[in-house]
Amino acid sequence: MRQHKLALCKVHFLDWVPEQVERTIKRYHMFTHQDRLLVAVSGGKDSLSLWDILYRLGYSAEGLYIGLGIDEGIDYSGNSLSYAHTFAEAHGLVLHVKDIKTEYGETVSELTARTHRGRYKPCSVCGLTKRHVMNLLAQSQGYTTLLTGHNLDDEAAILFGNTLSWVGSYLIRQGPVLEADRPGFVRKVKPLCRIYEREMAAYALLRSIPYIQEECPYAHDATSIYHKELLNKLEGDRPGAKLSFYLTFLQARRAGLFSPTIDERAEMVHSCTECGQPTTAPGLCAFCRMFVKSDYGQLPAMGNES
Amino acid sequence: MRQHKLALCKVHFLDWVPEQVERTIKRYHMFTHQDRLLVAVSGGKDSLSLWDILYRLGYSAEGLYIGLGIDEGIDYSGNSLSYAHTFAEAHGLVLHVKDIKTEYGETVSELTARTHRGRYKPCSVCGLTKRHVMNLLAQSQGYTTLLTGHNLDDEAAILFGNTLSWVGSYLIRQGPVLEADRPGFVRKVKPLCRIYEREMAAYALLRSIPYIQEECPYAHDATSIYHKELLNKLEGDRPGAKLSFYLTFLQARRAGLFSPTIDERAEMVHSCTECGQPTTAPGLCAFCRMFVKSDYGQLPAMGNES
Repeated sequence: MRQHKLALCKVHFLDWVPEQVERTIKRYHMFTHQDRLLVAVSGGKDSLSLWDILYRLGYSAEGLYIGLGIDEGIDYSGNSLSYAHTFAEAHGLVLHVKDIKTEYGETVSELTARTHRGRYKPCSVCGLTKRHVMNLLAQSQGYTTLLTGHNLDDEAAILFGNTLSWVGSYLIRQGPVLEADRPGFVRKVKPLCRIYEREMAAYALLRSIPYIQEECPYAHDATSIYHKELLNKLEGDRPGAKLSFYLTFLQARRAGLFSPTIDERAEMVHSCTECGQPTTAPGLCAFCRMFVKSDYGQLPAMGNES
Repeated sequence: MRQHKLALCKVHFLDWVPEQVERTIKRYHMFTHQDRLLVAVSGGKDSLSLWDILYRLGYSAEGLYIGLGIDEGIDYSGNSLSYAHTFAEAHGLVLHVKDIKTEYGETVSELTARTHRGRYKPCSVCGLTKRHVMNLLAQSQGYTTLLTGHNLDDEAAILFGNTLSWVGSYLIRQGPVLEADRPGFVRKVKPLCRIYEREMAAYALLRSIPYIQEECPYAHDATSIYHKELLNKLEGDRPGAKLSFYLTFLQARRAGLFSPTIDERAEMVHSCTECGQPTTAPGLCAFCRMFVKSDYGQLPAMGNES
């Protein structure tokens, strides 16, 4: 690990990763052993490894798998679910499963084909759906904290994208912890935000965690993958650049770089008339608007939430 | 020009560039025909083309060449000066020449070899020197506006570097116009900030302006060149990305993205005891500190001014 000037054997590496995650949890005051934790589990290496690390660190966390109904000839969602199930059963952990088609009548693939938002940005439909379902379930069942498996590469790529287009309302909020500072939001945290993607891949491999190796069939279009490639070039030439980009951002923001007035989330003072979740304008939230068949929805704003 | 979805012949291109520059001058309220203008001329394509464009647009601007004393076996500074001289003579324009060795006793090469700042970052010594000499001359001789030939690629690369390290005090100030908002500063403007580097190269070529083609011998170490390469990759894949990165930054800042409290320039309330120029702390300014032989100077802060 050139960025840390550190080389570890298997045994020490498998201790080092949870130690780093524990430090991140404490440094950003993410949660304690008293919290009720819900991990968003996709069946991929990051979220399953996160669940594994939490288990090893003695945190009791339940899992949430969201069935998005992405098939594309390889039963992507079905396979993902079975990896999540396998892990939960092997460790005796509770896995909640929410299926979009069952709950809302349409899969993400169907939404992608039907809506204006989806045709331009399938990942936007998927992200909106996941954020909606995660928050709704966590809130209705009394979890205090939602955990996602975003690693450093994910975070740096999202930050890079938001920086290229200078979306203030996203820049002011992206970080290891998204506080539940408005009614209706559950606290969201990213315990892997300081761990490189290749470190997470090594962890899953060395811990022999079976996970879905295919990329999402929609990912080839994702801008975030392109930004990851650019950042990988930067990291290759300047080891540590990705970590430094993310951490100096967090420091600068903590030091007051951004004007608080740019936080649009502060304007989320309305409740959706359909689902009750917080939204910026009176009426339906962006998720519920997607299901109003006569409304083809608006193009999403530039930038990425996570 | 894919970013503009525009293709022009020689004649129209040579009209288009000054039109764009005039629009930039007006859009950012840079100066009028009543202002006393001083162009910083390096002998390169950008500054000579800028001087040429101003001449064609009917602005009367004098030039300032700063002799930095960079030789490195190719008489880099000497050759640069003769290109500046040739242009000034051919157009009957006034060129002021300030030689660092004559004025201060040491060349930039000597300063680079002697000082701590220089050994780590020669471009930092050079930038500090140029900013100091430009401001001093412009102020003492009553010019209202200092013009530099920074093009879009320069600006985007500086912005990219400052973003990678999130230097708030530079982010809040970088732009087409740096107001003379503190005593002792002359207003600085960059009329080429919206024109791509390759457009400027094409302009100089088509106008048959002789200019120094070699890069500065120190440039191979420059981080800004590396950042330019990364942005060129981005631009190649997403035409217009560089312009959009820079313009959305300017828009977001104008809309209040940054907190005004991060502007360190606001703290430049002292006058250097040696040269009288503004500085953040009592005593010598950073430029004059460089010449105190017993003091090897401090490492410069991360980030780039321009």
